[in-house]
Amino acid sequence: MTELEAVVATVDDRVRPDAAERTRMGEAVEALRGRVERALAEGDVPSAVAERVDVLQVGSTARGTWLAGDRDIDLFVRFPTSLDRADLERYGLSIGRAVLPDGHEEYAEHPYVTGEFDGFDVDLVPCYDVDSAAETRSAVDRTPFHNEYLRARIDEERARDVRVFKRFLKGIGAYGSDLRTQGFSGYLTELLVLAYDGVVPLLRAAGDWQPPVEFDLADHATREHDDPLVVVDPTDPARNVAAVCSAENVARLQHHARDLVDDPRTDPFFPADVEPLDEAAVTEHLARRGTSPVALRFDAPEIVDDQLYPQLEKSLDGIAGELNRRGFGVLRGETFADDSAVVLLELATRTLPAVERHKGPPVHVRTHAEGFFEAYAHDETVYGPFIDRDRYVVERPREWTDAHELLASDALFDVALGKQIESTLRTEEYEVLVGDEIASLTGEFGEELARYFEPRP
Amino acid sequence: MTELEAVVATVDDRVRPDAAERTRMGEAVEALRGRVERALAEGDVPSAVAERVDVLQVGSTARGTWLAGDRDIDLFVRFPTSLDRADLERYGLSIGRAVLPDGHEEYAEHPYVTGEFDGFDVDLVPCYDVDSAAETRSAVDRTPFHNEYLRARIDEERARDVRVFKRFLKGIGAYGSDLRTQGFSGYLTELLVLAYDGVVPLLRAAGDWQPPVEFDLADHATREHDDPLVVVDPTDPARNVAAVCSAENVARLQHHARDLVDDPRTDPFFPADVEPLDEAAVTEHLARRGTSPVALRFDAPEIVDDQLYPQLEKSLDGIAGELNRRGFGVLRGETFADDSAVVLLELATRTLPAVERHKGPPVHVRTHAEGFFEAYAHDETVYGPFIDRDRYVVERPREWTDAHELLASDALFDVALGKQIESTLRTEEYEVLVGDEIASLTGEFGEELARYFEPRP
Repeated sequence: MTELEAVVATVDDRVRPDAAERTRMGEAVEALRGRVERALAEGDVPSAVAERVDVLQVGSTARGTWLAGDRDIDLFVRFPTSLDRADLERYGLSIGRAVLPDGHEEYAEHPYVTGEFDGFDVDLVPCYDVDSAAETRSAVDRTPFHNEYLRARIDEERARDVRVFKRFLKGIGAYGSDLRTQGFSGYLTELLVLAYDGVVPLLRAAGDWQPPVEFDLADHATREHDDPLVVVDPTDPARNVAAVCSAENVARLQHHARDLVDDPRTDPFFPADVEPLDEAAVTEHLARRGTSPVALRFDAPEIVDDQLYPQLEKSLDGIAGELNRRGFGVLRGETFADDSAVVLLELATRTLPAVERHKGPPVHVRTHAEGFFEAYAHDETVYGPFIDRDRYVVERPREWTDAHELLASDALFDVALGKQIESTLRTEEYEVLVGDEIASLTGEFGEELARYFEPRP
Repeated sequence: MTELEAVVATVDDRVRPDAAERTRMGEAVEALRGRVERALAEGDVPSAVAERVDVLQVGSTARGTWLAGDRDIDLFVRFPTSLDRADLERYGLSIGRAVLPDGHEEYAEHPYVTGEFDGFDVDLVPCYDVDSAAETRSAVDRTPFHNEYLRARIDEERARDVRVFKRFLKGIGAYGSDLRTQGFSGYLTELLVLAYDGVVPLLRAAGDWQPPVEFDLADHATREHDDPLVVVDPTDPARNVAAVCSAENVARLQHHARDLVDDPRTDPFFPADVEPLDEAAVTEHLARRGTSPVALRFDAPEIVDDQLYPQLEKSLDGIAGELNRRGFGVLRGETFADDSAVVLLELATRTLPAVERHKGPPVHVRTHAEGFFEAYAHDETVYGPFIDRDRYVVERPREWTDAHELLASDALFDVALGKQIESTLRTEEYEVLVGDEIASLTGEFGEELARYFEPRP
């Protein structure tokens, strides 16, 4: 057994659900399945429909690839495609409420019911019983096909590999296909383990990946994808399972896989919690860095994380682009969200001269040149026009000489911001923090500031 | 007569040498010519050489194209090409000293003698009697050919046009082929007037020039020139008479020609003196502009202007390039010279953060990426390495955070400076002025600072 194989075994000892957990899980699933059957028999689903419905357990707990302590049970209730969508939703919710009377409704592409049962977090999701994953009416219809594909291929050993790889991705912060993380989904994790026939060869290979890296397990791809990692869905030839996975997370996996292969150990799988920074530490970092930080702080709009984080990223990109164009020299930026949301940027300088160079046309391009000269010849606010090489030039008043003023003004809305973030900033008070005022963010974001000021791969 | 023609006539009334001046000039030339003949007959030039020597008056005073009050007489003493160079120089100086006993020697490509005679500034220059301007051994050998070409073509009316055009170029600051001005030489001025058959059509046309503008009066060009204005020497097909004329001065002529044609008047020919700025005015400009000025002041090296000014320009370009690369954002710069020399630059900011972003290789370029990561992984002075998109990035200490410190250090010599300027800065004390200290330059450079802070085309 190599050192790396020994690490895999040790990690799995910690993350493998034990027999008691498996038994409890199996019992809970059976009990839930019974409740669904009863709801179908006794509820308001017409019997002609009810007899064509089946109930499937899907997700990692259906395949033995869950990590010990994860308590998610995903039950899909599959309806015939002849049912119209409104009925599917209605029947789905009705069964859900009967099975999980204390649960509540959530909305993805369909509404579904989520609730607790016997200590487990249960999602009860209605979907259509389509003929193939390529014909799905919504994303959830695809899940049973994924489940079927994996169940047939993941044996006990591969289930172990999947658990260990998941734990590794969690440890390095690259697990999850939510739009905050933009990392590796559970399904992607399992397909990669299958592609390499084990976690050890996968980890060894990842360090040598030359993106774009492509896998097509079913050898049936029908299109190109412009992503650093392409894993063609074996149940849907047009889909890249890794579409959401960012270049950063691919690089992160490559970095940490090399590091682990080079020095096999369990630490990277179970990193220590990040110590939050306090105000003094932030102030010290800022003094050491000598940058000019600015931050917007506002109440986080009430939208789901998969909307909020992309909007925060978009807002950061828009604001950073504008500050760069205006000459403030953005060094780095980040967004944080909890009850408030923050867009933080560190600038080379918060203030700039009152004048900026404005290059006119070449003097020999007569019509343009005369227009430019006339426009500024009698303008008392500019220096020039004068000639530099073959062109007219003026030094005109700079529109924004202080990044703080720009961010506190309506000019903020000339920038592409996330939609609900823009409406929040337009309609509510927001703060612009500068310099050491940034330290006040430690109250809510000490951990995020630690990650920002002590950045790691 | 058009308004513009009337302006030409009025200007010429002021710049045309009157009969008395012409007579005095003629008499002086004749007297000098007599002295040369005597020196040839009586001096140490062997008679076999002396009888093959001739004396030529060249330059504007030979062609009636000088401006009233200019008192330059150029006499060329032309020797047979059989003479070797050392003898030519020896005989030339010997004649020069005999003709101008109070004169002194100057060194261009040959040594020559310059001195005063009867109130005129006389240059007595030895040259070779070559067969054509294309066969010259040094630049001065070409002058007699220029003189011959122009004398045959410049009549009284064209002489007037040349005078007026020269006066115009002087008024706008574009006259002179010295390397400080990089403007229009006397010869170029005369050729342009001939090319357009008069100053009025020349001024009308110049506003519509589309550089590169090319003239080949003798229709004999043998090569391409990469200059905005090309006037092929009618006496030398390979030479561009306007080679030294900068794009800026071509644009300057275009600007002012348009302005004059649009609004004919004599003011541009006789601009008022520039009012020097005092310290308070400089301080006020700096406050209004909000820039961070820095300047080097040092003793001007003892070299001729045609060496000094190009070296100052080169130094300015080198320093500005370095400060821009280092992130200080040069807005504008200028050089001044008198007893001291100054390189002045206005920056967006004099100080920058202590850290700078340093982008490493993509993580997937394994060998480079591992080298980069290892180089910084244990470096306590950097932030990171972390991952941004597909690359490693660190924030490392910025080498120069204060432009003043950079300019006061030996890092100054990593920049391409003019040769004698570099040796002056290396061996003598120099000052680095920042902020309002710039105002102290008004003592020596009040006029130059007025041109800098009140720039015009």
